[in-house]
Amino acid sequence: MAPVLSISRRTRNTPWTQRNREHGVKAYTVYNRMLLPTVFESVVEDYHHLKKHVQVWDVACERQIEIKGPDATKLVQMLTPRNLTKMKDDQCYYIPVVDENGGMLNDPVAVKHNDNRWWISIADSDLLYWVKGLAVGKGLNVDIFEPDVSPLAIQGPKADDLMAQLFGEVIRDLKFFRHRQIKFNGKSHTVARSGFSVQGGFEIYVDGTKQGEPIWDALFEAGKNLNVRAGCPNAIERIEGGLLSYGNDMTIQNTPYEAGLGKFCKGPAAKGCIGGEALRREQIDGPKQQIRGLAISGDAVPPCQNAWPVMVEGAQVGQVTSAAWSPDLNTNVAIGMIEANHWNIGTQVTVQAQDKSRNAEIRKLPLIT
Amino acid sequence: MAPVLSISRRTRNTPWTQRNREHGVKAYTVYNRMLLPTVFESVVEDYHHLKKHVQVWDVACERQIEIKGPDATKLVQMLTPRNLTKMKDDQCYYIPVVDENGGMLNDPVAVKHNDNRWWISIADSDLLYWVKGLAVGKGLNVDIFEPDVSPLAIQGPKADDLMAQLFGEVIRDLKFFRHRQIKFNGKSHTVARSGFSVQGGFEIYVDGTKQGEPIWDALFEAGKNLNVRAGCPNAIERIEGGLLSYGNDMTIQNTPYEAGLGKFCKGPAAKGCIGGEALRREQIDGPKQQIRGLAISGDAVPPCQNAWPVMVEGAQVGQVTSAAWSPDLNTNVAIGMIEANHWNIGTQVTVQAQDKSRNAEIRKLPLIT
Repeated sequence: MAPVLSISRRTRNTPWTQRNREHGVKAYTVYNRMLLPTVFESVVEDYHHLKKHVQVWDVACERQIEIKGPDATKLVQMLTPRNLTKMKDDQCYYIPVVDENGGMLNDPVAVKHNDNRWWISIADSDLLYWVKGLAVGKGLNVDIFEPDVSPLAIQGPKADDLMAQLFGEVIRDLKFFRHRQIKFNGKSHTVARSGFSVQGGFEIYVDGTKQGEPIWDALFEAGKNLNVRAGCPNAIERIEGGLLSYGNDMTIQNTPYEAGLGKFCKGPAAKGCIGGEALRREQIDGPKQQIRGLAISGDAVPPCQNAWPVMVEGAQVGQVTSAAWSPDLNTNVAIGMIEANHWNIGTQVTVQAQDKSRNAEIRKLPLIT
Repeated sequence: MAPVLSISRRTRNTPWTQRNREHGVKAYTVYNRMLLPTVFESVVEDYHHLKKHVQVWDVACERQIEIKGPDATKLVQMLTPRNLTKMKDDQCYYIPVVDENGGMLNDPVAVKHNDNRWWISIADSDLLYWVKGLAVGKGLNVDIFEPDVSPLAIQGPKADDLMAQLFGEVIRDLKFFRHRQIKFNGKSHTVARSGFSVQGGFEIYVDGTKQGEPIWDALFEAGKNLNVRAGCPNAIERIEGGLLSYGNDMTIQNTPYEAGLGKFCKGPAAKGCIGGEALRREQIDGPKQQIRGLAISGDAVPPCQNAWPVMVEGAQVGQVTSAAWSPDLNTNVAIGMIEANHWNIGTQVTVQAQDKSRNAEIRKLPLIT
């Protein structure tokens, strides 16, 4: 029997919870203590639609941490080994955030407004607490809070067409991971070319809960001829695309190098990062295990509800942390953490899935291109 | 249609997830990114059983933050306005934890082992991040981590009998919010007289995931004649008993005074607390709103999925954040935050519940005694 989710105030509603219900949401997860839809038609139907058309996603659970004040940029650099010195005021950066040991605390997108004002658009952990703790402990001159800003993602190959119909052709010129302001009903909202799929699209950082339903409704009105649907991050598509999920594919136990994010840990700017020193040895020696793709044979795997051991000759050499049947690749696709001696592409392994053991092969990420 | 919960590695399994399934768990919530059962037979059946017999609860989601090192006690005092100076090495304290503005970050139970070693047994927020951020920022000499320790609660009027059958008669002498060590299978575990019900009972801090199922099985074997059942924190019982739920009844927007926890904010020890200064004004003037009980008339209310406005003469004077039908009180019971001009016991108000407006009366907490 499918487990039911008990919803309370603590598992927060979003500006679009009512709209999701009207569009037939069938399942949720809880993400940053907020409802995140996971299924509308079915995971497979949603997947096919996402790759052909355009979807509107309630990703309000990507909460914002606003950092305002003269020490804002200094503080953001403390959070991450990624060099922020050349970042422009209209850029978004994907930043691994690490603790003093180099363990990952989150993998958010940093949205820079200017040197004195940032948003950190977070994955699933209360990063606000780390940022506030550091700022208070260090005595920095910043205000830190969660603003009433909720991202709404427009994803899929027709995302540009939908956005252009509502906000004008100029939106097509917005470059990847750049942001600008759009007007809706006389109010200004930040929009970026970004999102948790590899189909392309946008995220509107909707400013104010009350603005949520009018923007949603306008998008559906404008997208009538584009087969627009309510959707959500799709488990199959994001695994195929190699998009990591914090809490699934990496945790505080992992470094950015292990998560395959070493390219974001280079250069002298990491010196400003709290975990920079701790990461130095791994920068030289490399990690002992690393994220890989896997193709798992056999029929469709069940959802990966806990880490599945990856075995070679009876010894554990890693674990699978996300898995799904891929209709387009006609095999099960997976993401896992594999030890150095066994992580070469093409290595044959055994995966102890929840249901049974299966043969599998190490692949590179993304699994689909 | 009841919403389904999509379970992934990110919504962590506990040592007892398999046991909960075997005992027929029907619904979950996600608490500290971990599965927490909410229903076995039904919320009402579970409630009646809890008040008559004894239940074993998987509350592994009450994760522990271990703080070890010479600065441990200093750091714990930074977290809370509650005076810790007289706390003994076998005591547990309920401590409001506040940020630099006096806003509540969590309401955990602090378990003191000695001056150099504490556990903070947390409610639903990543308090680990705040504690680590502060410690790193202040340069304190401590190690901070989440150990592999999972609380298992034994709750109900027959809890003493069950515990005595398994661990010996001496366990009956354990006083409220005191802890001691028990042995099971040659391993030592901390046990406290505590738990998230007002029926009395214990929490075993099971040391090591692998120890979980053997202890569970031994409790059910020992409790055969006591009508022991798998259970979980019960929404009705905890509202009747006035037990607050962080994220439902108070958030970072609320101070401990507003949450009715002013008695834990007294004295000079609050000086060591990060938020002590911010709380000083409220210590003198009192809060502008405060937690109250409510009795809501009419048939059984639906679950409170977001804050319900509390109205007097057309103006909002507060909000209800938890509500349930109480079979024993033959009315709906609720917890809410009410403005000072309207919080007197006996005040008549209107509650705009999800389904309809209802008459209600302000009551003191706990609602049942």
